[in-house]
Amino acid sequence: MSFKKDIQAGIIHAVETVRQTNPMAGSVTNTVTINFVANAQLAVGGSAAMVYLPDEARSLAQAGGAAYINLGTLTPVYEKTLPPMAKILHSSGKPWVLDPVAIGIGDLRTRLLLAFKPCKPSIIRGNASEIIALAGLWGLAGGTGTSNVRGVDSQDPVSAAKDAAVALAGWTGGAVAVSGKQDLITDGSVIAFCHGGSHFMEKITGSGCSLGGVMAVYATAASAFIAALTGAAVYNLAGCRAAEKTDAPASFQVHFLDELYKAKSKEIAENPFDIEEI
Amino acid sequence: MSFKKDIQAGIIHAVETVRQTNPMAGSVTNTVTINFVANAQLAVGGSAAMVYLPDEARSLAQAGGAAYINLGTLTPVYEKTLPPMAKILHSSGKPWVLDPVAIGIGDLRTRLLLAFKPCKPSIIRGNASEIIALAGLWGLAGGTGTSNVRGVDSQDPVSAAKDAAVALAGWTGGAVAVSGKQDLITDGSVIAFCHGGSHFMEKITGSGCSLGGVMAVYATAASAFIAALTGAAVYNLAGCRAAEKTDAPASFQVHFLDELYKAKSKEIAENPFDIEEI
Amino acid sequence: MSFKKDIQAGIIHAVETVRQTNPMAGSVTNTVTINFVANAQLAVGGSAAMVYLPDEARSLAQAGGAAYINLGTLTPVYEKTLPPMAKILHSSGKPWVLDPVAIGIGDLRTRLLLAFKPCKPSIIRGNASEIIALAGLWGLAGGTGTSNVRGVDSQDPVSAAKDAAVALAGWTGGAVAVSGKQDLITDGSVIAFCHGGSHFMEKITGSGCSLGGVMAVYATAASAFIAALTGAAVYNLAGCRAAEKTDAPASFQVHFLDELYKAKSKEIAENPFDIEEI
Repeated sequence: MSFKKDIQAGIIHAVETVRQTNPMAGSVTNTVTINFVANAQLAVGGSAAMVYLPDEARSLAQAGGAAYINLGTLTPVYEKTLPPMAKILHSSGKPWVLDPVAIGIGDLRTRLLLAFKPCKPSIIRGNASEIIALAGLWGLAGGTGTSNVRGVDSQDPVSAAKDAAVALAGWTGGAVAVSGKQDLITDGSVIAFCHGGSHFMEKITGSGCSLGGVMAVYATAASAFIAALTGAAVYNLAGCRAAEKTDAPASFQVHFLDELYKAKSKEIAENPFDIEEI
Repeated sequence: MSFKKDIQAGIIHAVETVRQTNPMAGSVTNTVTINFVANAQLAVGGSAAMVYLPDEARSLAQAGGAAYINLGTLTPVYEKTLPPMAKILHSSGKPWVLDPVAIGIGDLRTRLLLAFKPCKPSIIRGNASEIIALAGLWGLAGGTGTSNVRGVDSQDPVSAAKDAAVALAGWTGGAVAVSGKQDLITDGSVIAFCHGGSHFMEKITGSGCSLGGVMAVYATAASAFIAALTGAAVYNLAGCRAAEKTDAPASFQVHFLDELYKAKSKEIAENPFDIEEI
Repeated sequence: MSFKKDIQAGIIHAVETVRQTNPMAGSVTNTVTINFVANAQLAVGGSAAMVYLPDEARSLAQAGGAAYINLGTLTPVYEKTLPPMAKILHSSGKPWVLDPVAIGIGDLRTRLLLAFKPCKPSIIRGNASEIIALAGLWGLAGGTGTSNVRGVDSQDPVSAAKDAAVALAGWTGGAVAVSGKQDLITDGSVIAFCHGGSHFMEKITGSGCSLGGVMAVYATAASAFIAALTGAAVYNLAGCRAAEKTDAPASFQVHFLDELYKAKSKEIAENPFDIEEI
């Protein structure tokens, strides 16, 4: 199928460009998994930098090829840091990835997410419950007015978030990635279902967060849709390979990062995915 | 001994209930070991969520089956976050675990610990010096007016904290766990001495912190005493097994988390412990 | 060469003293690599403690044998915490290590670095671009008025920072360590070039940060120059050995920490280095 081959060529190009150019994607991200995010970004060939302060976020937004904003473990300074950072990213046409983790918990998170709507994140990555809740918060189709998020866990299957994902991608003009047993990635006109991974990815904290950071790295070198799909593909491939080498989560995480580093561009492009027209 | 068998049955029930129900125990915890806490909670079958802001802590306290408060790496917002969180946990009868790490260092930590006294943490976990200092701060028997804590290290043997631990458990009506070469767990009327572990647990940061988080997970499914003992038992078992597989601390930590995940309920219940009536 | 033998004797003494006395070196350091810093300090035989609040930093500065200040992931409270901490360290003659990570990004970092100048850090550790930028900021020879730092990465080779390193060491009366393919350590009168390591050290986040923390541990037991060289030597040795055991970054990090723990004092002293008079 020719369209699929085009996508695979795009994945190969993204992976190789990142490995050759070592692009920087700065992050404002939670303290739980910040180290995993950075090491995953490095493993795929990118460069990482993390900040909290408003003027530093502005600098990072301007200096990086893309940026990653993850809403875990908010602190008071986020209120001043994130809305201007998102505005700069949007106005300068710089790709950025939003992870609306824990949407529905706390006032600041809600205010930040509302402020992000006009800033149209290039990629939104979350679990099904988060994607549904974000569509709801932004008044789009497929969303619900109330969040069904428990802490950081999804209470909904990926398929339940299909309409919300398509509506969000329609709004942003970018891509939306719903993580789950099979990942759903859409640009609003086509949907890719990406296969692989391992049940151990839910047994370590941060597989979702670090995937968002990796998608930001790829977004420096590809369209939002290709960047999101490349991230999902290398995660599914590395997860699958790591799970073959161990039977427990901590050694899985070590193998997983190792496999992110080792995965060849062609192998990543050939990780199984299906395309569905909307 | 029939009483010991009852305890072992309680441990088995706690371990299996957690694995079946994947309970959430939210945390406010330090940035040094926050990732280890989360991964340990996941490894034993629980779910983790970490926050800093007052309203998010309130949400977590209400949504989780238990909570974990660790006083490492305090930031200014803790002053507004923790006292109301502890009050909600206490008034709603929700189990919570306190780790008074670094007690005696800094004014805010002292103020927070004083505020926690009427909120009666279900489980207090610390090293001997921390437990002695907390009993002292709360004006209970066995405590000392001044802290003998050096940074995060204990300067006292576990046995020296026996009276303080019993007095604290008498005050809270819950359990107190003193970590050391052999762990002491008491509910104020009996003491369990729990054996095993490895000297490598002092060579990695966070074995104490993550144990507190794991005890919070078990507290969703058992009494404070059983939850604390189950946590100590699985840590001693996993530490022992991990130490058999390596001769250095970083690989020890990987094996340790793997063994937390793999340990069977019966094996955890059979990890050696002695019971002593007070 | 007799001078080299003296240095090697100093390294052996530093390594063994630390292992025998378990000295505490407290840190204020970034959230990305804080866990790695602590575990590296523990692996070489030290003790770690991390804080953010002003009065806690004061306590740590007084209680520890040395301290480590790393300017990554600044938060608002750093403004009140760090200048007084540095003043206490300097006025009490306590050794402290400065890592000027991300120098040039953000106003607060610049203000802090200017405030540190009279406090004369015993060891300054950074990559070449950071060292050049710091000399520039402090108006010393070899520096440039503008920072050439991209996020956390160096854009200059180690050799380009030679004059800046010598000038900084001349100002502080301590040592400066420039990390890179070969590390340059100088006390202003001699330069040591320290060899070894692995390209994987750039593929994991925090090899520089954790090295700064380890140098602080050694600074409790040796002169600034010997402490810095001992840190560089054990890192180069452990990096080299870890790279022989794996072909990917996450397992490299595990092996690396293991080798930090295992390295014998004589082996560390014999890790290749050259001495050059200035």
